[in-house]
Amino acid sequence: MTEYAFGVDIGGTTVKIGLFTSGGDLLDQWEIVTRTEEAGIHVLPDIAASIRQKSEEHTILLEQIKGIGIGVPGPVGEDGTVYRCVNLGWGIINIKAEMNALLPEISNVVAGNDANVAALGELWKGGGAGHQSAVMFTLGTGVGGGVVYNGKIVAGKNGAAGEVGHYTVNPEETVFCSCGKRGCLEQYASANGIVRMAKIMLEEEDTPSSLRDMAVFSSKEICDLAREGDVMAGEILDRCCEYLGLAMSFVSCTMDPEVFLIGGGMSRAGSILIDTIGKHYRKYAFHASQDTEIKLAELGNHAGIYGCVKMVLG
Amino acid sequence: MTEYAFGVDIGGTTVKIGLFTSGGDLLDQWEIVTRTEEAGIHVLPDIAASIRQKSEEHTILLEQIKGIGIGVPGPVGEDGTVYRCVNLGWGIINIKAEMNALLPEISNVVAGNDANVAALGELWKGGGAGHQSAVMFTLGTGVGGGVVYNGKIVAGKNGAAGEVGHYTVNPEETVFCSCGKRGCLEQYASANGIVRMAKIMLEEEDTPSSLRDMAVFSSKEICDLAREGDVMAGEILDRCCEYLGLAMSFVSCTMDPEVFLIGGGMSRAGSILIDTIGKHYRKYAFHASQDTEIKLAELGNHAGIYGCVKMVLG
Repeated sequence: MTEYAFGVDIGGTTVKIGLFTSGGDLLDQWEIVTRTEEAGIHVLPDIAASIRQKSEEHTILLEQIKGIGIGVPGPVGEDGTVYRCVNLGWGIINIKAEMNALLPEISNVVAGNDANVAALGELWKGGGAGHQSAVMFTLGTGVGGGVVYNGKIVAGKNGAAGEVGHYTVNPEETVFCSCGKRGCLEQYASANGIVRMAKIMLEEEDTPSSLRDMAVFSSKEICDLAREGDVMAGEILDRCCEYLGLAMSFVSCTMDPEVFLIGGGMSRAGSILIDTIGKHYRKYAFHASQDTEIKLAELGNHAGIYGCVKMVLG
Repeated sequence: MTEYAFGVDIGGTTVKIGLFTSGGDLLDQWEIVTRTEEAGIHVLPDIAASIRQKSEEHTILLEQIKGIGIGVPGPVGEDGTVYRCVNLGWGIINIKAEMNALLPEISNVVAGNDANVAALGELWKGGGAGHQSAVMFTLGTGVGGGVVYNGKIVAGKNGAAGEVGHYTVNPEETVFCSCGKRGCLEQYASANGIVRMAKIMLEEEDTPSSLRDMAVFSSKEICDLAREGDVMAGEILDRCCEYLGLAMSFVSCTMDPEVFLIGGGMSRAGSILIDTIGKHYRKYAFHASQDTEIKLAELGNHAGIYGCVKMVLG
């Protein structure tokens, strides 16, 4: 009997769902709206209904489904307990118990934090394929991360493993991070962070730059201008990458992973980002780990559904 | 048939050996000299001879021995390959293969880095008992460390996991660490490091201190004076603990362990050390991990033999 598995990546706006063979091939993928109203009580029933419907469409019996892996935007304990998901309106719920009630035919339900799950997906089928350990830095609105060791997600005692955006990389910082600390990596290396830092650097220095002619600019424009040779944009990107390289050296002294993966919107800057991070990483890394590879993530928005299914397939 | 296991902790001067029941009780423990002459070729044969002799003394058949766990002062791969041990004169050797040739009756030989093995021992029977994950900071001549996750040692791709002495905690440092980088934790928080830092601080500041009347002082004297209320010694210890707390916050953002353990000679300073590290750790740690316990290691020099046997008993 052919077997299947579902990967379900719950975001604040949409839920991405993938139907996979038990061999790990993606057969179908679609999205449903995340209905966050009424404290998010519709989210899991909507997912269960969508899984029933797609199984019928593909003439798959629920008994043929090996399991469902679910990624959520919040801390998740080893037993599937979700500790508050602000974006979904959820308090503390046990996602496995809830899904088992909605889909009693599928007992195997595994949940994980979305950033960790994306790292697992990248290790399995993306930039980290062929490796057993990886740490991913996702440079989006904030800086998220995920840690995979021996092919498994490292969640941590408080679900805070892989909170790479909150390494204190600049203890002298006076501005607060949204987490309540000061000097977090996220304040310099997220899409918002690099723009914030750029504005400060533009005020402090008088190097000419096309950025000065723009009323508003984004992280993409900083990276584009740096690549085109704008000296000031290059300096801004360099400082962002210096903090990233420093943070990666902290990872290496802790668990010495096989590979670093860079994902998120800012990773579209590509090789200039990887090369500049690498230059600084090698300066700060302990000699034994200096050659650890730094690579771009490859699965984009699909990393989550791959990682969810990998949790189920083991 | 009662079963036994040996834990063998190889140091540069002596080899500590323990005979344990398979239930983990220490029956006997002794030391032999580490003969490092002739590129250390006698070290493993001496250990094998000692194991044979003690087995006879205790009327234990070699067939009753479940295995031998060996800790070495150098990087060790997952398969038991030791990559250079400067202190022992060793190049690259496979310790499992060598021991199997010397003691063919005991096939199960497992090797690990000494700092990692000590952390495992502490997790099993020492300060970390009852936990599944811990990161140990050993404050000795240098700063070593070990990482245990899910009850197993994390060695890392290059054997560099747990190199906690080489977190760059002060990128502004101008003096080089023995590792070739600048600003490593070891430069401030080892027995040598705190004395080095104390001399600089005594020159930079003019706060009165009993340290000024001493031609030579040690880390112990700094800690003792700090406890007795010497303001300057307190400031020195505070700065050392600030770097330690910062480094521990890096660990938490990576793998969020259940407990931190502080061992090594400097840990004899006791509660003043733990309390001061904790104060700074909580300032730098991500909120979810702020309450992670920081404890003293408990097994002292015995941590290694316990950890070695734990590798064998699993």
